[in-house]
Amino acid sequence: MARARGAKPSGSVTSHDVARLARVSQATVSRVLRDDPNVRPQTRERVLKVLAETRYEPNAAARAFRAGRADSIGVVVARLSYQLYPAMLEAIGAQLARLGRRMIVWDSDHGGDAPAIRALRQGVVDGVILTAATAESEFLREVSAEGSAVVLLNRTVADYASDQVSSDNLDGGRRVADYLVACGRERIALIGGIPRASTIRDRERGFRKSLERLGRELPPHYYFRSETFSHASGEQAVTRLMELASPPDAIFCVNDVLAMGAMDGARARGARVPDDLWIVGYDDIEIASWGAYDLTTVRQPMELMVAQAIDLLLARIDRRDAPVHHKCLPNELVIRGSTARQTPPASQPARKPRP
Amino acid sequence: MARARGAKPSGSVTSHDVARLARVSQATVSRVLRDDPNVRPQTRERVLKVLAETRYEPNAAARAFRAGRADSIGVVVARLSYQLYPAMLEAIGAQLARLGRRMIVWDSDHGGDAPAIRALRQGVVDGVILTAATAESEFLREVSAEGSAVVLLNRTVADYASDQVSSDNLDGGRRVADYLVACGRERIALIGGIPRASTIRDRERGFRKSLERLGRELPPHYYFRSETFSHASGEQAVTRLMELASPPDAIFCVNDVLAMGAMDGARARGARVPDDLWIVGYDDIEIASWGAYDLTTVRQPMELMVAQAIDLLLARIDRRDAPVHHKCLPNELVIRGSTARQTPPASQPARKPRP
Repeated sequence: MARARGAKPSGSVTSHDVARLARVSQATVSRVLRDDPNVRPQTRERVLKVLAETRYEPNAAARAFRAGRADSIGVVVARLSYQLYPAMLEAIGAQLARLGRRMIVWDSDHGGDAPAIRALRQGVVDGVILTAATAESEFLREVSAEGSAVVLLNRTVADYASDQVSSDNLDGGRRVADYLVACGRERIALIGGIPRASTIRDRERGFRKSLERLGRELPPHYYFRSETFSHASGEQAVTRLMELASPPDAIFCVNDVLAMGAMDGARARGARVPDDLWIVGYDDIEIASWGAYDLTTVRQPMELMVAQAIDLLLARIDRRDAPVHHKCLPNELVIRGSTARQTPPASQPARKPRP
Repeated sequence: MARARGAKPSGSVTSHDVARLARVSQATVSRVLRDDPNVRPQTRERVLKVLAETRYEPNAAARAFRAGRADSIGVVVARLSYQLYPAMLEAIGAQLARLGRRMIVWDSDHGGDAPAIRALRQGVVDGVILTAATAESEFLREVSAEGSAVVLLNRTVADYASDQVSSDNLDGGRRVADYLVACGRERIALIGGIPRASTIRDRERGFRKSLERLGRELPPHYYFRSETFSHASGEQAVTRLMELASPPDAIFCVNDVLAMGAMDGARARGARVPDDLWIVGYDDIEIASWGAYDLTTVRQPMELMVAQAIDLLLARIDRRDAPVHHKCLPNELVIRGSTARQTPPASQPARKPRP
């Protein structure tokens, strides 16, 4: 066993040592450890005392084997370089730690799906939180049974029979479009991304739908699709948009890093934000509030999303046939300097004309 | 067992099912699984075929119990909000995945030391990588035996008898001081931090020593100690420095987020970087290269540091009495716009006058 090789003074105590010190058999030590009633009270007392004195820690593998629980939760993330994911991971780790669970982390960009599937099958983790699932995920193809201990957090996948927690990205996109139009922006552009991710797809859809509803169009040359969500691709997109005969006066970027790339790219071409160009992001990562960007963006209720995902997962581990939940939490538009801190006109005149 | 509760079609195959399908006893299946030679070749063949067909996965707890190995490595990080740590975690995760090991992550800011100690003692992890250790860490107090499967990465602790991997922070600090003096900066200030972390302590020490050696002093009012390493505290520090009768013309900040806070704070007060003030950071986190900051900074060889730490840890797990290594890798000064992209004069005139 690993422990036998460990050089820890207290960790190296074996159940054999405990048995010897308590003058009982190893089988009796095992019975005490699993609360078997077939142990005489004074014997139990003596064994418990030795266990406490030696600070004996049963080997976790042996314990998990007996208890059928690993006390670990797997988390599959993508792109730890995008601050949203470390923030999510930090929240998940802190909340799991409070519940006495460990967190095993895989990065889906570095082949994390396969080992996560294996770990779930092997009982290394009791359940898995997928934060970056797409309909194409290997994980979803392989772990598709109803009642699997899997929860989708952040990104959702339609028709996948598991608990899912997201924020309302459709409404977030809608809200940005409403805001830009209400503030009188005339030429509104969109820097979007690969539509595999539900988050991105919904933000774009909500944004487009709302523009349509308001009688505005998004001409094809005002749309740029980023393949990478990187700062560099935001820069590239804005460069293309600014080369147009009639460049946009506002750009919605489907995440904050694209928005920061767009802002740096626009400034490098001599444009002033917000004087010449408004830029809006999505996610409210920490840097968004820093002076250099001061970015208007949409904030998701991350702590709450994480708490609900963990609740659902733990409930599912206890009861595989519980009804499946899809939770969709509301977002918040955070208005900052990249849109001149302008709040939208208080009343919608078309809806409720003043008397 | 956890697997018995799992609803996975393939994951729910037990060794009992395999035995039945292969028409052998469960004991024979076990013997095949552990490569016991006491199985007839045609029987082994038949069992292996059924194992492959049913995609049988032995329960990991049972396997770990037999093999004495968890195939998991623990990683204790701090402040996932500082981009250096997610980048480190990403590199560790990718490299461990290639080696077939899982990564269990704890956040020392959220009580991660205690569960990491427990996991090491219980054999849940085969070894632990500590990225944010200080001499005060609970982990180090509790796991202090020589030969423990622990490696310190990034931060080091003198007199702690484990393998340690860092970059040369003393030399990094020295290099920044040399650069600023060589480029003719006159009034050089330092925004430092809590000296518990070896990284910060060494950067400051190297910087101060080099200034001294060059006959320059760092007056007390040109030094600010941040308690939090946050963007806000960088802003606060620069505000204080700029209120001085003779404000600095260059500031070295011991990490990049402090430098970004200082830059935003200076700009908010109307100072131009680099025209009025040079700013230098440390770590070269991704944002440092973005247009808004374009920060001169010191880059650590992160991938290499991670690779060496993992090598040492795996070697230690195999051989507890191997000699202890302290590795200290060289850094690189990355010159960008926050110091006007100025390269230091090529030759040191004092050393080698031109003929």
